[in-house]
This record gives sequence, structure tokens and C-alpha cells, in this order.
Amino acid sequence: MTLGSGEEILKRADEMAQFSAMEKGLTRAYLTKEHKQAHQQLSHWMALAGLEVWQDSVGNQWGRKASSNPTQPTLIIGSHSDTVVNAGKYDGNLGILLGLEALKQLEGIDLPFHVDLVAFADEEGVRFNTTLIGSSATAGCFQPAWLDIKDSDNIAMGEAMLSFGLPPELAGKDARLPQEVKAYLEVHIEQGPVLEDLNLPVGVVTGIAGAKRYQLSVKGMAGHAGTVPHALRMDALCGVAEMITTIETYGLEHNVVATVGKCDVKPGAVNVIPGDVVFSLDVRSPVQGDLEVACNELHSQLEEIAQRRELQLTSELTYQAEAVPCNAELQQQWGKIVEKQTGTKACFLPSGAGHDAMVMANITDIGMLFVRCEKGISHNPREQVNAQDVTVALNCLVDMVQLLANPNSAEA
Amino acid sequence: MTLGSGEEILKRADEMAQFSAMEKGLTRAYLTKEHKQAHQQLSHWMALAGLEVWQDSVGNQWGRKASSNPTQPTLIIGSHSDTVVNAGKYDGNLGILLGLEALKQLEGIDLPFHVDLVAFADEEGVRFNTTLIGSSATAGCFQPAWLDIKDSDNIAMGEAMLSFGLPPELAGKDARLPQEVKAYLEVHIEQGPVLEDLNLPVGVVTGIAGAKRYQLSVKGMAGHAGTVPHALRMDALCGVAEMITTIETYGLEHNVVATVGKCDVKPGAVNVIPGDVVFSLDVRSPVQGDLEVACNELHSQLEEIAQRRELQLTSELTYQAEAVPCNAELQQQWGKIVEKQTGTKACFLPSGAGHDAMVMANITDIGMLFVRCEKGISHNPREQVNAQDVTVALNCLVDMVQLLANPNSAEA
Repeated sequence: MTLGSGEEILKRADEMAQFSAMEKGLTRAYLTKEHKQAHQQLSHWMALAGLEVWQDSVGNQWGRKASSNPTQPTLIIGSHSDTVVNAGKYDGNLGILLGLEALKQLEGIDLPFHVDLVAFADEEGVRFNTTLIGSSATAGCFQPAWLDIKDSDNIAMGEAMLSFGLPPELAGKDARLPQEVKAYLEVHIEQGPVLEDLNLPVGVVTGIAGAKRYQLSVKGMAGHAGTVPHALRMDALCGVAEMITTIETYGLEHNVVATVGKCDVKPGAVNVIPGDVVFSLDVRSPVQGDLEVACNELHSQLEEIAQRRELQLTSELTYQAEAVPCNAELQQQWGKIVEKQTGTKACFLPSGAGHDAMVMANITDIGMLFVRCEKGISHNPREQVNAQDVTVALNCLVDMVQLLANPNSAEA
Repeated sequence: MTLGSGEEILKRADEMAQFSAMEKGLTRAYLTKEHKQAHQQLSHWMALAGLEVWQDSVGNQWGRKASSNPTQPTLIIGSHSDTVVNAGKYDGNLGILLGLEALKQLEGIDLPFHVDLVAFADEEGVRFNTTLIGSSATAGCFQPAWLDIKDSDNIAMGEAMLSFGLPPELAGKDARLPQEVKAYLEVHIEQGPVLEDLNLPVGVVTGIAGAKRYQLSVKGMAGHAGTVPHALRMDALCGVAEMITTIETYGLEHNVVATVGKCDVKPGAVNVIPGDVVFSLDVRSPVQGDLEVACNELHSQLEEIAQRRELQLTSELTYQAEAVPCNAELQQQWGKIVEKQTGTKACFLPSGAGHDAMVMANITDIGMLFVRCEKGISHNPREQVNAQDVTVALNCLVDMVQLLANPNSAEA
């Protein structure tokens, strides 16, 4: 086993997984003992790789491969080190460890820009009722009001920072300026089944999907399951069934995914025709325009179903996030590199999940690469990647840094 | 207001509704103080109408209009006097009061058979975990094991009988013999919207639907609502939505009603593709053969949907009751009488709900007439009938008794 292989990276992911609040399993939340231990470990590895290391105002861990030319903007490579409860070992952490290994491989090579490797300390938002705290601080989006948010033990974020050794009044004050950042690169497990289905180790991310979530309510008329003929029913669940099929068909035929994840039926008795159904609708698209059109068209189609069936439909928007495209040139560059490394045409795919990159897009161009994960399982101890795929991703990331350093040397 | 009108009957229904365990609202369960009071009131009215009155072994209240010819079988007219919790005033009680008023109108007319009016003391089964106790005793179906069934206060049915003044060892011992019963007639509110929809006061019941209930379980694969494209999903809820539409279409096109009343979605989160759905299916038909065919065909169709979508479907039969047809000749006779009384063609419709008649079918021919009720609402304080419809039903019932007394005098 040679240092720098995918297997070495997976071994490091195992080591990182020891810093956990759980005895058996991985849970690592923001501003905890585990956060501190994990970042000490990363800091140690960064220093061994010859990087200048520091912790920023909100507890993100940084390591810099400095250039001899200090006048150029800095390339940032990173992902997050925190996890969900009972997490997998690769979501977030793999991207940090890939960046670390890439910089090790590039040790001794003078690049025409600094490269900063970052471990964002909070992306998942497990501890406080807000996500992406780490990258928000870096991208100038940290809200001072967040310092008052309390965790489930009634500890405010500001207090937790103090206990961690961070002066809360400085939180977010060391945000990076757009003009000093060249780009942000993030490698992440796909958290979906597309690459596995196509039998590809990696894929180029086209953008991070925008999302809209609705709570829809359908009112019909409850009735006796035995005494009301079908033609006289106003069965709310039959209406919702038709709506769910319409939503699914729309998702199959358009550039969105649309999911009904919750469905509550009232009164919910075996022998009573449902009079009320409340269900959720989650629509996502990497293209904001497609998302808007989809939500409008879907609502029209659902309203048509409701009217035809004499049901009352109401809809409430409960959440929305704008789509964030990945930089087109970075996508092209990833594509060329992936083709070179894999010998096959690169797959371009959107990210349905959120990532630090979408916050970093506030200050710089973002470029993301996905690594195949088994069955698309994530946020779960069964999260799995294979070493060969990780090696491919590593080679792509090294190539990408070199391509950015020498854009004119790129092969077609 | 003349005695014997529908309004008079509705006034009596109001009086009966005073015998309730609820302060505001009607709840009258088996072997309670309210049961005793209600039957004392009925007994009083029966005696005033010239009937011989008695209480049977399980607490049913009887009143006999005796014939001068004691050799003929007895015609039984009745329904139940117990109610559900927070009930309407007409379910069951209307049929008893109609029988009472019919016998008052026939007072002084010597019929060639006895007519027994019965108020069955338990049909709804609110107190003990079994229904139709009253008519079961009359029809020879009372199970001595029922005496051990306890109510929610841990009082066994046998104990409750003792407290009520009934020796439990005699329960059901006074069942009527098939050869001594001519027929059983029951008038009941429809508990459905068919007659209202057709603008008809009454309708002839073709039979009491058989029912089968299933719990169905559909297993797919849960997944991230953002990262799994539609083509790679095994969304259990989308499968169930298609199944519900198939079930509805089947009900619209066949002689059954088929209802999905419960539907539980797991994991049930806005942003997770449903992996498991459990739902109920209630299928009913007045024709047992149609019910069997429907259940088989529906299961085939649901299985086809599951296989096409790579979902796992399992189904468990949780309840079944055989269909009980009403006697064909009695249906024809009701039909002729209804046409005479209303001047319009009679509506023949099945009963989707159970009735005492279906137990009485064990010992005699049954004939049922439905009375329109507002919006089909039943088992609810909003249960409503109108006086004109009740008058029509009364006239039909009087005509029916006279037609059975003089079958050759019938008009075509």
C-alpha cells in the first residue's frame, strides 16, 4: 500500500471517525470536544504536509500551501468535518482528506497561487437550528444573531464558542474577500445512485439544486365506506393519489425531482372515506427557472385535479432555496480531466443536496466533483465508497489544481 | 299535526333521545340505565297501541299485535334501540318507531298472522367487543362465551345482565324458530347519499353488502429527495398512489365499493422518498360472488403495479363478512308499494352498512326499506331525516303488512 492511494485516504477517514460523541458510530457536532479533536488531527496532518495551519473565527480549520507569488488570489479546496447523528464516514470528511492528499502530492511544486485547504466546522447544522455556519463565516454570510441560537441543552452558540476558545464577537469578521479568492473546489460523495447506475467513479457537478417545499391540504368529504357509491364520493385520498401520480410523471419528464414524502390521512379509519389529506411536496432543480416553472405548472395541474373532483386544495410554501450553478468553465475543465483519468466520457449531474460550495458561490466561482457511493446511501453508517474511486477523484483534483496553475497546458 | 304523521314519529325520536348517557348528545349502550329507560318508554307506547309487551332473555323489548288465527307464523318488524357514542336520533330508533306507528294504524284490523314489533337492545356493539347481540339472541346465534366479554370497566356481559335483571344462563334460550317466523321487516335510514342524490324519499334494499378488509404493505427504497432521479426511485408512495387510483377505478366500474381509509407513510419526512407504506382496503358488495371476484382482481392489479415498479406488496385479510341478500319477493313487493306511494319508479339499492336484518336472515326472509337521510350523514348528531319522507316510509310499511295479509289483493 503506497501513501497517497485511495486506501490511505479511507484509512484516514476511519481515523477521523474516532472523534465521535457516540460509542459505536459517528456523530460530530459543531463546537464540541470531538470537533476540537478532529481539527487537531487535521491540523497535525496539514502541518506534516507542509501547510501553514490556523483556525479561523468560527472554528474552521485551515492549511495553506503558500505560493512564492503572493499577488494572486487564493484557490480554496474544502468540505465540512461535522456530521449528522449516526453518520457515515465520508460525507464532508472525504473532501477534506482528498484535498489534503492532493496538496501532499503537490508538495514542492510552486504554484502561481496559494492553495488553502479548509475543514468547515459546521455544514449539517445538527447542534444549532441553522446550517452551513462554517462556510457562511468564510463567505461573509455569518449572521451575528446566530450567536443567540441555543442548542437542545440551552447553550447559546456564542457561549459554546467561548467554551471552545473562540471570542464570539469576532465570529465571521475574518471572512474572505471575493477579490482574494480564485475559486472554490469541493469533492464530495454523490449521496445519490446516479454514478453507480452509470458505473462511473466520479462525475462533474453542474449545480446545486434549488428547492421549494410546500405543505398541501386537500379537503373532500368523509363518509361511510360501505354506503357511499364511488360516483357520489369526494374522497380526498383518491384525489391526492392522482396528484402524486401527476407529480411523479412531471418529475420523470422534466428537469426536476419532485417528491411527496409525508402524507397524513384523516380521519384515517379502515371503514371511513378520507375527508382530509395533508401532504408535502419537495421540488428541486439545478436550474432556478426550471424550478419556478415546475412549481407553477404542478400547482396548476393539482388545482385542475382538485376542481374536477370537487375537492378544496390549499398550498403553503414552507421553504425555498435558490439554485446555485457551478462555474461553466470549471465544469468543462473537470470534464476534460475526468475523461483523461477514466477514459470515458464524463457524466455531468446536478446535486440535489446542499453543500458548502453553494455558500462559497457568494464570493467566488465554485467547481464540484462527485465520487460514487454505494447505492447512493448517505447520512447513514452504511455510507460506503471504494478506494479505486477515491484514487480517481484524487488524481482529478491534483490535475485540476495543475490545470488552474497552467491553463494553457490543458489538453483538449 | 295529526297523530301518526311523520312529524309525530320524529317527536317520539326526540323523546327517545333523552335516554342518554351524555348530557348533551345521545349515547345509549347495552344493559345500561338508559337502555332500561328507553325500553320502558317503548313498552309504555306499545301497550298504549294495544300490543302485548314483554322483554326477552337478552333485554330486547317486544310488543305483539296478536292475530285471532294463532296457527300462522309471526311477522317480525323491528330495528335496534342502542346507539353509537354521540349518535344521531334515527339510526335504529326510527325503524322501531315506524313499526310502532304502523301497528297503531292497523289497530283493530285482524291480520292472519301475529305481528311482533322488536327493539333490539344491541346492534352497534359499543359496550362489549361484539355487535348485533340483540338480534343474534332472537335468531339463535347468541354465543354463551359472549357472557364473559368484559366492557371497559371490566364488567362482564353476564354480570351486566344480572344487574339489569336478566338471568345470564337464559340468554338466547328464547330464540325464535324459523318455522314460527313469517318474515322480518326493517326500515332504516340509508346512512348514505344515494336517495338524496336521486331525490327519492325511500328505497328498496337489495341486500346487505358482504365485506372484506385487508391491510396492505408496500416496500420500496427510501432515499434522498434531492439526489435520486425519478428513474432510479423505488418510491413506495408513488406505487400506492397508482394502486389507490386503480382501486377507485375498479369501484366505479364494478358492483363493489372499495375504499382506502388508512395510509401510513414511512419514514414520513418532507425530504425523504417514502420507503414503506401501509394502507387499508375495504371492499364491499351486496353480491358475494362479485365481492370475491373484485378482491381477486384487485389483488392481481395491485401486484402487477408492485412488480412493474419493483416494489414488494404483501396483503393480509383482517376482516370478512358474507353478503346477505334481501328476499327477492319481498323486494318486488316493496317496489310495487313504493311506486304506489311515491308515484315514481322505486330505487333498489344495496346496504353498505350492517343491520339486524342480516342476522335475522338466519331464520327467515328479510325485507328492508331505506329512508333518505340528509347528506347521508349517520353515526353523528347531525343525522337528519324529514317528516314527509318518514310519512312515506310509514305508509309503505302499513301497505306492506296489509299486502302480506292479503297477497292476492296486490295491484300490479
